[in-house]
Amino acid sequence: MVKEEIRVLGFDDSAFEKKSKCLVPVVGVIFRGGKFLDGVLKTEVMVDGLDATEKIIKVINSSRHKEQLKVVMFDGITMAGFNLVDIKEVNEKTSLPIIVINRKMPDLEKVKNALKNFEDFEERWKIVLNAGEIKECRVKNRKIYFQAVGLKDWDAKEIIRITSTRSLIPEPLRVAHLIATALVRGESHGRA
Amino acid sequence: MVKEEIRVLGFDDSAFEKKSKCLVPVVGVIFRGGKFLDGVLKTEVMVDGLDATEKIIKVINSSRHKEQLKVVMFDGITMAGFNLVDIKEVNEKTSLPIIVINRKMPDLEKVKNALKNFEDFEERWKIVLNAGEIKECRVKNRKIYFQAVGLKDWDAKEIIRITSTRSLIPEPLRVAHLIATALVRGESHGRA
Repeated sequence: MVKEEIRVLGFDDSAFEKKSKCLVPVVGVIFRGGKFLDGVLKTEVMVDGLDATEKIIKVINSSRHKEQLKVVMFDGITMAGFNLVDIKEVNEKTSLPIIVINRKMPDLEKVKNALKNFEDFEERWKIVLNAGEIKECRVKNRKIYFQAVGLKDWDAKEIIRITSTRSLIPEPLRVAHLIATALVRGESHGRA
Repeated sequence: MVKEEIRVLGFDDSAFEKKSKCLVPVVGVIFRGGKFLDGVLKTEVMVDGLDATEKIIKVINSSRHKEQLKVVMFDGITMAGFNLVDIKEVNEKTSLPIIVINRKMPDLEKVKNALKNFEDFEERWKIVLNAGEIKECRVKNRKIYFQAVGLKDWDAKEIIRITSTRSLIPEPLRVAHLIATALVRGESHGRA
Protein backbone atom coordinates (compact mmCIF):
# COMPACT_ATOMS: atom_id res chain seq x y z
CA MET A 1 0.00 0.00 0.00
CA VAL A 2 1.36 3.39 -1.03
CA LYS A 3 0.28 6.39 1.06
CA GLU A 4 -1.55 9.21 -0.75
CA GLU A 5 0.87 11.78 0.68
CA ILE A 6 4.07 9.80 0.09
CA ARG A 7 7.05 12.18 -0.10
CA VAL A 8 8.54 12.06 -3.58
CA LEU A 9 11.59 13.98 -4.81
CA GLY A 10 11.70 14.61 -8.56
CA PHE A 11 14.65 16.03 -10.50
CA ASP A 12 14.85 17.87 -13.82
CA ASP A 13 17.59 19.84 -15.51
CA SER A 14 17.42 23.22 -17.21
CA ALA A 15 17.70 23.63 -20.95
CA PHE A 16 21.06 24.96 -22.11
CA GLU A 17 22.65 26.51 -25.14
CA LYS A 18 24.60 23.94 -27.16
CA LYS A 19 27.49 26.34 -27.53
CA SER A 20 28.05 26.89 -23.83
CA LYS A 21 30.24 24.34 -22.05
CA CYS A 22 29.32 25.10 -18.51
CA LEU A 23 27.28 24.24 -15.46
CA VAL A 24 23.56 23.64 -15.89
CA PRO A 25 21.11 24.02 -12.97
CA VAL A 26 19.32 20.85 -11.81
CA VAL A 27 16.21 21.34 -9.68
CA GLY A 28 14.76 18.84 -7.22
CA VAL A 29 11.17 19.24 -6.03
CA ILE A 30 9.70 17.45 -3.03
CA PHE A 31 5.98 16.75 -3.27
CA ARG A 32 3.52 15.12 -0.91
CA GLY A 33 2.06 12.62 -3.33
CA GLY A 34 0.50 14.56 -6.20
CA LYS A 35 -0.87 17.18 -3.86
CA PHE A 36 1.49 19.93 -2.81
CA LEU A 37 5.04 21.16 -2.86
CA ASP A 38 7.04 20.64 0.30
CA GLY A 39 10.56 21.71 -0.64
CA VAL A 40 13.00 22.63 -3.36
CA LEU A 41 16.63 21.59 -3.89
CA LYS A 42 19.17 22.84 -6.41
CA THR A 43 22.49 21.65 -7.72
CA GLU A 44 24.50 22.14 -10.91
CA VAL A 45 26.08 19.67 -13.31
CA MET A 46 28.56 19.98 -16.18
CA VAL A 47 27.33 19.87 -19.77
CA ASP A 48 28.30 16.40 -21.08
CA GLY A 49 30.20 15.78 -17.82
CA LEU A 50 29.89 12.74 -15.58
CA ASP A 51 29.28 14.47 -12.27
CA ALA A 52 25.46 14.18 -12.16
CA THR A 53 25.38 10.96 -10.10
CA GLU A 54 27.69 12.35 -7.43
CA LYS A 55 25.94 15.75 -7.31
CA ILE A 56 22.50 14.17 -7.05
CA ILE A 57 23.60 11.83 -4.23
CA LYS A 58 25.14 14.75 -2.37
CA VAL A 59 22.07 17.01 -2.63
CA ILE A 60 19.76 14.17 -1.51
CA ASN A 61 21.88 13.06 1.44
CA SER A 62 22.40 16.60 2.70
CA SER A 63 18.72 17.53 2.47
CA ARG A 64 16.84 18.19 5.69
CA HIS A 65 13.94 16.31 4.05
CA LYS A 66 16.01 13.13 3.65
CA GLU A 67 14.44 11.20 6.53
CA GLN A 68 10.92 11.74 5.19
CA LEU A 69 11.69 10.92 1.56
CA LYS A 70 10.35 7.63 0.25
CA VAL A 71 11.30 7.67 -3.44
CA VAL A 72 13.33 9.66 -5.99
CA MET A 73 12.22 10.27 -9.58
CA PHE A 74 14.00 11.32 -12.75
CA ASP A 75 12.73 12.33 -16.16
CA GLY A 76 15.11 10.10 -18.12
CA ILE A 77 18.67 9.48 -16.94
CA THR A 78 20.46 12.10 -19.04
CA MET A 79 21.06 15.62 -17.76
CA ALA A 80 22.81 18.58 -19.39
CA GLY A 81 23.46 16.72 -22.62
CA PHE A 82 24.93 13.29 -21.89
CA ASN A 83 25.68 13.67 -18.19
CA LEU A 84 24.23 10.33 -17.12
CA VAL A 85 22.68 9.55 -13.75
CA ASP A 86 23.62 6.11 -12.45
CA ILE A 87 20.37 5.28 -10.68
CA LYS A 88 21.79 2.03 -9.30
CA GLU A 89 24.50 4.04 -7.53
CA VAL A 90 22.00 6.69 -6.39
CA ASN A 91 19.87 3.89 -4.91
CA GLU A 92 22.85 2.32 -3.15
CA LYS A 93 24.25 5.55 -1.72
CA THR A 94 20.96 7.14 -0.62
CA SER A 95 19.08 3.92 0.31
CA LEU A 96 16.09 5.33 -1.60
CA PRO A 97 14.17 3.58 -4.37
CA ILE A 98 14.41 5.26 -7.78
CA ILE A 99 11.86 5.60 -10.58
CA VAL A 100 12.84 6.92 -14.01
CA ILE A 101 10.00 8.18 -16.21
CA ASN A 102 10.25 8.13 -20.01
CA ARG A 103 7.35 9.58 -21.92
CA LYS A 104 8.57 7.85 -25.07
CA MET A 105 10.24 4.48 -25.42
CA PRO A 106 13.97 5.31 -25.17
CA ASP A 107 15.88 4.48 -28.38
CA LEU A 108 18.89 2.72 -26.85
CA GLU A 109 20.64 2.20 -30.20
CA LYS A 110 20.55 5.95 -30.80
CA VAL A 111 21.86 6.63 -27.29
CA LYS A 112 24.64 4.06 -27.77
CA ASN A 113 25.75 5.66 -31.03
CA ALA A 114 25.80 9.13 -29.47
CA LEU A 115 27.82 7.86 -26.51
CA LYS A 116 30.42 6.39 -28.87
CA ASN A 117 31.61 9.96 -29.41
CA PHE A 118 32.89 9.98 -25.84
CA GLU A 119 36.29 8.60 -24.88
CA ASP A 120 34.75 7.04 -21.78
CA PHE A 121 32.05 5.28 -23.79
CA GLU A 122 32.30 2.06 -21.77
CA GLU A 123 31.68 3.85 -18.47
CA ARG A 124 28.70 5.79 -19.86
CA TRP A 125 27.11 2.79 -21.52
CA LYS A 126 27.36 0.85 -18.27
CA ILE A 127 25.32 3.60 -16.57
CA VAL A 128 22.63 3.25 -19.24
CA LEU A 129 22.49 -0.52 -18.63
CA ASN A 130 22.42 0.01 -14.84
CA ALA A 131 19.05 1.77 -15.24
CA GLY A 132 17.59 -1.66 -15.98
CA GLU A 133 14.69 -2.95 -17.96
CA ILE A 134 12.26 -0.49 -19.52
CA LYS A 135 8.67 -1.24 -18.54
CA GLU A 136 5.27 0.11 -19.48
CA CYS A 137 2.62 1.76 -17.38
CA ARG A 138 -0.67 3.55 -18.09
CA VAL A 139 -1.37 7.07 -16.79
CA LYS A 140 -4.79 8.57 -17.55
CA ASN A 141 -5.11 5.88 -20.22
CA ARG A 142 -1.89 6.90 -22.00
CA LYS A 143 1.13 4.63 -22.20
CA ILE A 144 4.36 5.81 -20.58
CA TYR A 145 7.61 3.99 -19.82
CA PHE A 146 9.55 3.61 -16.60
CA GLN A 147 12.56 2.00 -15.01
CA ALA A 148 12.72 1.15 -11.32
CA VAL A 149 15.52 0.30 -8.92
CA GLY A 150 14.93 -0.69 -5.30
CA LEU A 151 11.17 -1.17 -5.44
CA LYS A 152 8.66 -3.51 -7.02
CA ASP A 153 7.06 -2.65 -10.36
CA TRP A 154 3.66 -2.72 -8.72
CA ASP A 155 4.67 -0.05 -6.19
CA ALA A 156 6.40 2.04 -8.87
CA LYS A 157 3.22 2.06 -10.96
CA GLU A 158 1.13 2.99 -7.93
CA ILE A 159 3.46 5.89 -7.08
CA ILE A 160 3.41 7.12 -10.68
CA ARG A 161 -0.40 7.08 -10.68
CA ILE A 162 -0.76 8.78 -7.28
CA THR A 163 1.61 11.61 -8.22
CA SER A 164 0.35 12.27 -11.78
CA THR A 165 -2.53 14.47 -10.68
CA ARG A 166 -2.28 17.38 -13.12
CA SER A 167 -0.73 15.92 -16.23
CA LEU A 168 0.67 12.72 -17.69
CA ILE A 169 3.81 12.97 -15.60
CA PRO A 170 4.26 13.03 -11.82
CA GLU A 171 3.87 16.45 -10.17
CA PRO A 172 7.44 16.68 -8.76
CA LEU A 173 8.81 16.23 -12.30
CA ARG A 174 6.30 18.62 -13.89
CA VAL A 175 7.08 21.35 -11.35
CA ALA A 176 10.87 20.69 -11.38
CA HIS A 177 10.72 21.21 -15.16
CA LEU A 178 8.83 24.52 -14.79
CA ILE A 179 11.31 25.83 -12.22
CA ALA A 180 14.41 24.62 -14.09
CA THR A 181 13.23 26.26 -17.30
CA ALA A 182 12.50 29.56 -15.55
CA LEU A 183 16.01 29.62 -14.06
CA VAL A 184 17.55 29.79 -17.51
CA ARG A 185 14.92 31.48 -19.68
CA GLY A 186 13.25 33.72 -17.08
CA GLU A 187 9.94 31.95 -17.69
CA SER A 188 8.76 28.37 -17.51
CA HIS A 189 7.51 26.67 -20.65
CA GLY A 190 5.35 23.59 -21.03
CA ARG A 191 6.69 20.52 -22.74
CA ALA A 192 6.27 19.88 -26.46
CA MET B 1 -17.43 36.41 -6.44
CA VAL B 2 -13.85 35.15 -6.69
CA LYS B 3 -13.27 31.92 -8.66
CA GLU B 4 -11.67 29.01 -6.79
CA GLU B 5 -9.05 28.62 -9.52
CA ILE B 6 -8.26 32.33 -9.97
CA ARG B 7 -4.77 32.74 -11.46
CA VAL B 8 -2.54 34.48 -8.92
CA LEU B 9 1.11 35.46 -9.44
CA GLY B 10 3.15 35.76 -6.23
CA PHE B 11 6.70 37.14 -5.95
CA ASP B 12 9.44 36.57 -3.40
CA ASP B 13 13.14 37.36 -3.35
CA SER B 14 16.09 35.17 -2.36
CA ALA B 15 18.07 35.74 0.78
CA PHE B 16 21.47 37.33 0.21
CA GLU B 17 24.73 37.85 1.99
CA LYS B 18 24.98 41.35 3.44
CA LYS B 19 28.51 41.74 2.16
CA SER B 20 27.69 41.04 -1.48
CA LYS B 21 26.52 44.02 -3.54
CA CYS B 22 25.01 42.22 -6.44
CA LEU B 23 21.94 40.94 -8.18
CA VAL B 24 19.47 38.88 -6.14
CA PRO B 25 17.07 36.41 -7.81
CA VAL B 26 13.35 37.20 -7.55
CA VAL B 27 10.95 34.34 -8.27
CA GLY B 28 7.35 34.67 -9.43
CA VAL B 29 5.00 31.69 -9.09
CA ILE B 30 1.66 31.40 -10.84
CA PHE B 31 -0.95 29.37 -8.98
CA ARG B 32 -4.51 28.39 -9.77
CA GLY B 33 -6.13 29.56 -6.56
CA GLY B 34 -4.51 27.64 -3.71
CA LYS B 35 -4.48 24.44 -5.71
CA PHE B 36 -1.61 23.96 -8.10
CA LEU B 37 1.36 25.55 -9.73
CA ASP B 38 0.89 26.73 -13.28
CA GLY B 39 4.11 28.56 -14.09
CA VAL B 40 7.33 30.10 -12.82
CA LEU B 41 8.99 33.43 -13.66
CA LYS B 42 12.39 34.74 -12.69
CA THR B 43 14.09 38.10 -12.68
CA GLU B 44 16.95 39.70 -10.73
CA VAL B 45 17.18 42.95 -8.78
CA MET B 46 20.05 44.94 -7.30
CA VAL B 47 20.74 44.81 -3.57
CA ASP B 48 19.46 48.14 -2.18
CA GLY B 49 18.82 49.30 -5.74
CA LEU B 50 15.62 50.84 -7.09
CA ASP B 51 15.08 48.61 -10.12
CA ALA B 52 12.56 46.16 -8.59
CA THR B 53 9.46 48.00 -9.83
CA GLU B 54 10.69 48.14 -13.42
CA LYS B 55 11.95 44.53 -13.41
CA ILE B 56 8.68 43.23 -11.95
CA ILE B 57 6.58 45.13 -14.50
CA LYS B 58 8.73 43.79 -17.33
CA VAL B 59 8.56 40.15 -16.24
CA ILE B 60 4.77 40.35 -15.77
CA ASN B 61 4.05 42.06 -19.08
CA SER B 62 6.29 39.71 -21.06
CA SER B 63 4.83 36.56 -19.49
CA ARG B 64 2.85 34.20 -21.69
CA HIS B 65 0.48 33.84 -18.70
CA LYS B 66 -0.31 37.58 -18.67
CA GLU B 67 -3.77 37.33 -20.25
CA GLN B 68 -4.95 34.77 -17.68
CA LEU B 69 -3.57 36.54 -14.61
CA LYS B 70 -6.09 38.16 -12.29
CA VAL B 71 -3.97 39.44 -9.40
CA VAL B 72 -0.34 39.90 -8.32
CA MET B 73 0.89 39.34 -4.75
CA PHE B 74 3.98 40.40 -2.84
CA ASP B 75 5.33 39.41 0.56
CA GLY B 76 6.01 42.95 1.73
CA ILE B 77 7.23 45.64 -0.69
CA THR B 78 10.96 45.40 -0.02
CA MET B 79 13.23 43.12 -2.01
CA ALA B 80 16.98 42.53 -1.81
CA GLY B 81 17.43 44.86 1.15
CA PHE B 82 15.63 48.15 0.46
CA ASN B 83 14.83 47.75 -3.21
CA LEU B 84 11.22 48.90 -2.97
CA VAL B 85 8.37 47.78 -5.21
CA ASP B 86 6.02 50.62 -6.14
CA ILE B 87 2.78 48.65 -6.24
CA LYS B 88 0.83 51.68 -7.49
CA GLU B 89 3.10 51.81 -10.53
CA VAL B 90 2.96 48.02 -11.01
CA ASN B 91 -0.84 48.26 -10.95
CA GLU B 92 -0.87 51.12 -13.47
CA LYS B 93 1.59 49.53 -15.90
CA THR B 94 0.27 45.96 -15.81
CA SER B 95 -3.44 46.79 -15.29
CA LEU B 96 -3.50 44.06 -12.61
CA PRO B 97 -4.69 44.45 -9.02
CA ILE B 98 -1.99 44.05 -6.37
CA ILE B 99 -2.13 42.54 -2.88
CA VAL B 100 0.77 42.90 -0.44
CA ILE B 101 0.87 40.44 2.46
CA ASN B 102 2.53 41.32 5.75
CA ARG B 103 2.60 38.64 8.40
CA LYS B 104 3.42 41.24 11.01
CA MET B 105 2.24 44.83 11.24
CA PRO B 106 4.93 46.78 9.35
CA ASP B 107 6.83 49.22 11.57
CA LEU B 108 6.79 52.27 9.30
CA GLU B 109 8.85 54.43 11.65
CA LYS B 110 11.63 51.84 11.58
CA VAL B 111 11.44 51.64 7.78
CA LYS B 112 11.52 55.44 7.53
CA ASN B 113 14.63 55.65 9.71
CA ALA B 114 16.41 52.99 7.68
CA LEU B 115 15.52 54.75 4.42
CA LYS B 116 17.03 57.98 5.74
CA ASN B 117 20.43 56.39 5.09
CA PHE B 118 19.73 56.62 1.37
CA GLU B 119 20.43 59.78 -0.65
CA ASP B 120 17.16 59.25 -2.51
CA PHE B 121 15.15 59.00 0.72
CA GLU B 122 12.25 61.09 -0.64
CA GLU B 123 11.77 58.81 -3.63
CA ARG B 124 11.89 55.64 -1.52
CA TRP B 125 9.57 56.95 1.14
CA LYS B 126 7.03 57.92 -1.53
CA ILE B 127 7.00 54.28 -2.69
CA VAL B 128 6.25 53.15 0.86
CA LEU B 129 3.33 55.59 1.04
CA ASN B 130 2.09 54.50 -2.41
CA ALA B 131 1.45 51.02 -0.98
CA GLY B 132 -1.47 52.57 0.88
CA GLU B 133 -3.30 51.82 4.08
CA ILE B 134 -2.41 48.68 6.02
CA LYS B 135 -5.47 46.55 6.76
CA GLU B 136 -6.19 43.44 8.76
CA CYS B 137 -7.48 40.08 7.69
CA ARG B 138 -7.92 36.68 9.35
CA VAL B 139 -6.46 33.50 7.86
CA LYS B 140 -7.15 30.21 9.67
CA ASN B 141 -8.07 32.37 12.66
CA ARG B 142 -4.71 34.18 12.75
CA LYS B 143 -4.41 37.89 12.09
CA ILE B 144 -2.33 39.00 9.10
CA TYR B 145 -1.97 42.40 7.41
CA PHE B 146 -2.41 43.42 3.80
CA GLN B 147 -2.36 46.35 1.42
CA ALA B 148 -4.38 46.40 -1.78
CA VAL B 149 -4.27 48.51 -4.93
CA GLY B 150 -6.81 48.14 -7.75
CA LEU B 151 -9.31 45.93 -5.99
CA LYS B 152 -11.79 46.09 -3.14
CA ASP B 153 -10.78 45.00 0.36
CA TRP B 154 -13.53 42.41 0.30
CA ASP B 155 -12.12 40.79 -2.85
CA ALA B 156 -8.54 40.99 -1.54
CA LYS B 157 -9.58 39.16 1.64
CA GLU B 158 -11.44 36.51 -0.35
CA ILE B 159 -8.39 35.93 -2.61
CA ILE B 160 -6.07 35.67 0.41
CA ARG B 161 -8.38 33.08 1.98
CA ILE B 162 -8.82 31.03 -1.21
CA THR B 163 -5.08 30.85 -1.85
CA SER B 164 -3.91 30.15 1.73
CA THR B 165 -4.55 26.40 1.54
CA ARG B 166 -1.39 24.98 3.12
CA SER B 167 -0.18 27.63 5.52
CA LEU B 168 -0.96 31.09 6.83
CA ILE B 169 0.22 32.72 3.62
CA PRO B 170 -1.03 32.32 0.05
CA GLU B 171 0.41 29.35 -1.87
CA PRO B 172 2.13 31.39 -4.64
CA LEU B 173 4.08 33.29 -1.97
CA ARG B 174 4.90 30.16 0.07
CA VAL B 175 6.20 28.35 -3.01
CA ALA B 176 8.03 31.41 -4.43
CA HIS B 177 9.85 31.62 -1.10
CA LEU B 178 10.86 27.93 -1.22
CA ILE B 179 12.18 28.26 -4.77
CA ALA B 180 13.96 31.58 -4.17
CA THR B 181 15.71 30.17 -1.10
CA ALA B 182 16.83 27.03 -2.95
CA LEU B 183 18.36 29.15 -5.73
CA VAL B 184 20.80 30.70 -3.32
CA ARG B 185 21.28 28.08 -0.61
CA GLY B 186 20.77 24.91 -2.65
CA GLU B 187 17.85 23.97 -0.43
CA SER B 188 14.62 25.63 0.55
CA HIS B 189 14.03 26.51 4.19
CA GLY B 190 10.80 27.27 5.96
CA ARG B 191 10.22 30.64 7.51
CA ALA B 192 11.12 31.43 11.07
